[in-house]
Amino acid sequence: MATQLDERLEKYAELAVKVGANLQPGQDLFITAIVLHAPLVRALTRAGYAAGARYVDVLYTDQHVRKAKLELGPEDAVGYSPEWLKERWRAMAGNATFGTTGDPEPDLLAGLDGQLVGRDRMTGVIEIAMKHYSEHAVNWSGLAYPNEGWAMKVFGEPNVEKLWDAVAFCTRLNEPDPVQAWTDHIAKLKARAASLNERRFDAIRYRGPGTDLTVGLLDQADWLAAEFTTASGIAYVPNMPTEEVFTTPDCRRAEGYITSTKPLALMGDVVEGLKVTFKDGKIVEVDAKHGADVVRGQLASDERAAYLGELALVDGGSKVGQTGLTFFDTLYDENATCHIAYGFAIVECIRGDPASVSKIDGVNANSTVHTDFMVGGPQLEVDGLTADGDAVPILREDVWQLS
Amino acid sequence: MATQLDERLEKYAELAVKVGANLQPGQDLFITAIVLHAPLVRALTRAGYAAGARYVDVLYTDQHVRKAKLELGPEDAVGYSPEWLKERWRAMAGNATFGTTGDPEPDLLAGLDGQLVGRDRMTGVIEIAMKHYSEHAVNWSGLAYPNEGWAMKVFGEPNVEKLWDAVAFCTRLNEPDPVQAWTDHIAKLKARAASLNERRFDAIRYRGPGTDLTVGLLDQADWLAAEFTTASGIAYVPNMPTEEVFTTPDCRRAEGYITSTKPLALMGDVVEGLKVTFKDGKIVEVDAKHGADVVRGQLASDERAAYLGELALVDGGSKVGQTGLTFFDTLYDENATCHIAYGFAIVECIRGDPASVSKIDGVNANSTVHTDFMVGGPQLEVDGLTADGDAVPILREDVWQLS
Repeated sequence: MATQLDERLEKYAELAVKVGANLQPGQDLFITAIVLHAPLVRALTRAGYAAGARYVDVLYTDQHVRKAKLELGPEDAVGYSPEWLKERWRAMAGNATFGTTGDPEPDLLAGLDGQLVGRDRMTGVIEIAMKHYSEHAVNWSGLAYPNEGWAMKVFGEPNVEKLWDAVAFCTRLNEPDPVQAWTDHIAKLKARAASLNERRFDAIRYRGPGTDLTVGLLDQADWLAAEFTTASGIAYVPNMPTEEVFTTPDCRRAEGYITSTKPLALMGDVVEGLKVTFKDGKIVEVDAKHGADVVRGQLASDERAAYLGELALVDGGSKVGQTGLTFFDTLYDENATCHIAYGFAIVECIRGDPASVSKIDGVNANSTVHTDFMVGGPQLEVDGLTADGDAVPILREDVWQLS
Repeated sequence: MATQLDERLEKYAELAVKVGANLQPGQDLFITAIVLHAPLVRALTRAGYAAGARYVDVLYTDQHVRKAKLELGPEDAVGYSPEWLKERWRAMAGNATFGTTGDPEPDLLAGLDGQLVGRDRMTGVIEIAMKHYSEHAVNWSGLAYPNEGWAMKVFGEPNVEKLWDAVAFCTRLNEPDPVQAWTDHIAKLKARAASLNERRFDAIRYRGPGTDLTVGLLDQADWLAAEFTTASGIAYVPNMPTEEVFTTPDCRRAEGYITSTKPLALMGDVVEGLKVTFKDGKIVEVDAKHGADVVRGQLASDERAAYLGELALVDGGSKVGQTGLTFFDTLYDENATCHIAYGFAIVECIRGDPASVSKIDGVNANSTVHTDFMVGGPQLEVDGLTADGDAVPILREDVWQLS
């Protein structure tokens, strides 16, 4: 007998398979998830096979195993990518994938050396994932699994039911017809992206408390929203929820400083009060109330990590923003408000042949890092700057200004 | 602060790393475990790094994912071995591995078609594991993780503490000096194996209720106990607990029938009342009160599965037997009493160059199956038959008869 909870989980998994990854019959489905997310993984597996998956391939990850490595393992083990794991990532080409979020212990590694935590990145695996992104080879999606530890972090009490309500609200699972709700939502976000693309701004300027930053835009890049399409023509929604319109900027042109407006759960620690300063496109200074070393370790692990890869705009109409919650989970928090990301570009935003992307100056196409952090809120003013130097308001007090 | 439970788990993991796998500094440690075994996996990871592991590589398995595949997946997915998984198994050569037992739901798949369950074996992966066994390439060990579901199956109540007591008793973890207790225990079992090797019996005869079976022995095979040694000289204990002396028989010479005396947890179902009949070494008939089809499916998946690979003798002095429990877990139940296995030979028992094993007639060296089932108990009479046809009692009423 299915309980009410089971039914919600099944519906959530079906929505993710249909609208999120948009799994096609005959594809393999690769699921990579935290061990504690097993109930969601099983539901996704069932939904995947029901949708015609040839094989559902599950890999569970465990931050406690990583913690043991960082505490007790040799230096060689830091950032090590086993060959078999790379082989698994290679096999994803042409197939569908899910990753899950909702860390039951987002600050498990807070007591460790931040530089070490930041450096411990499986770049061998990430490079393969980047290749897939660049080649539009995978229909992928990320979604969260509500659990006690995560609820504790969000609410200060392990109220999973309350967290499920928030997740169902943000992912439109609580709508009478979630698939239709997503169709409408995607259309609305795409219209907003189109209104930005018509203007062809030369740059975006951010101003607010602790923030005065101008970032150049690329002629070759569009603003996108909600959906990507694989090289083989499969349209999919890589984030559930998604409330943003986004582009990849000219990574050579960022001047000024910007201060985060929400905590950032990053690699097992939570970075608080992050402020970064840019010169000639590059982050030259990192400050934070907590966790600056994790960011510094991450930036140091990769030559191009300190350059911008993404600008994303979110207004106060966001369902995630409407909850008023801090989720300590980037998939959610980045969809509550404006954010930017240092590291790897969103290469899908570049028009034309994917193979030519890495040849375009100003596209940050060679970093294994992509870290979003939240910079928006009612006090942030976002302007589009025209080539002539005029400033056009885009966001004021969290309200979208363009028609 | 470590709780008492944590301390026991840490000690258990240390014992497994030192005595079980006998991990050597610089080796990789591969752990393959059910998701629900995460606490043990984490303890093994810590113990592994503390003992000098270069990298601890964890893979969690999930029978619910397998169940979804068998219920909803295509025929192609049955028995499929992903290439990356094979790559992981190849990487184990020269390294240490753990597998865990203690299935929280040993009859999860009982409602499915038994033939399908029995056929769903990752032979691509198993063939690589067999190659490692044949080449003595891996120091491996198996150990159980007490959990609620398993306790429920054993006691009819989820009394994990009671199960931990049984596990600590059987693995000698409750001894004042467990490492010394293992040293003594290994010596005693080896002496028993030596007493059998001196006699060089030509065959073993089993008689009891529902049992009358004679199995030939091989000139080239020894009886072994407790310890194996890798080609590189690492002595390790592949099973914790272990109470058996065992050999690999002449797979051409088995005549008669034998009836199991304990339930057999097999591939997600529990086989009850198994009786198998042999002719010219081969199983020609399979009967059971429940689960015969799982055995039949398994035997059908492999040309050599229906021939014997192991004979093992256990007397009433076994710690596992002393508990009086049925564990529904072969690692435990096979160490309570005499057992035999159909499928892959225990190639370690063959004297001389490992490379020559597959050339010896009568060694069942080419099956991907190895399934132990329990046949012992006070009513089983085990005799050694000499080349002259004399019968020498080995076990009577669970008491060892040889000096």
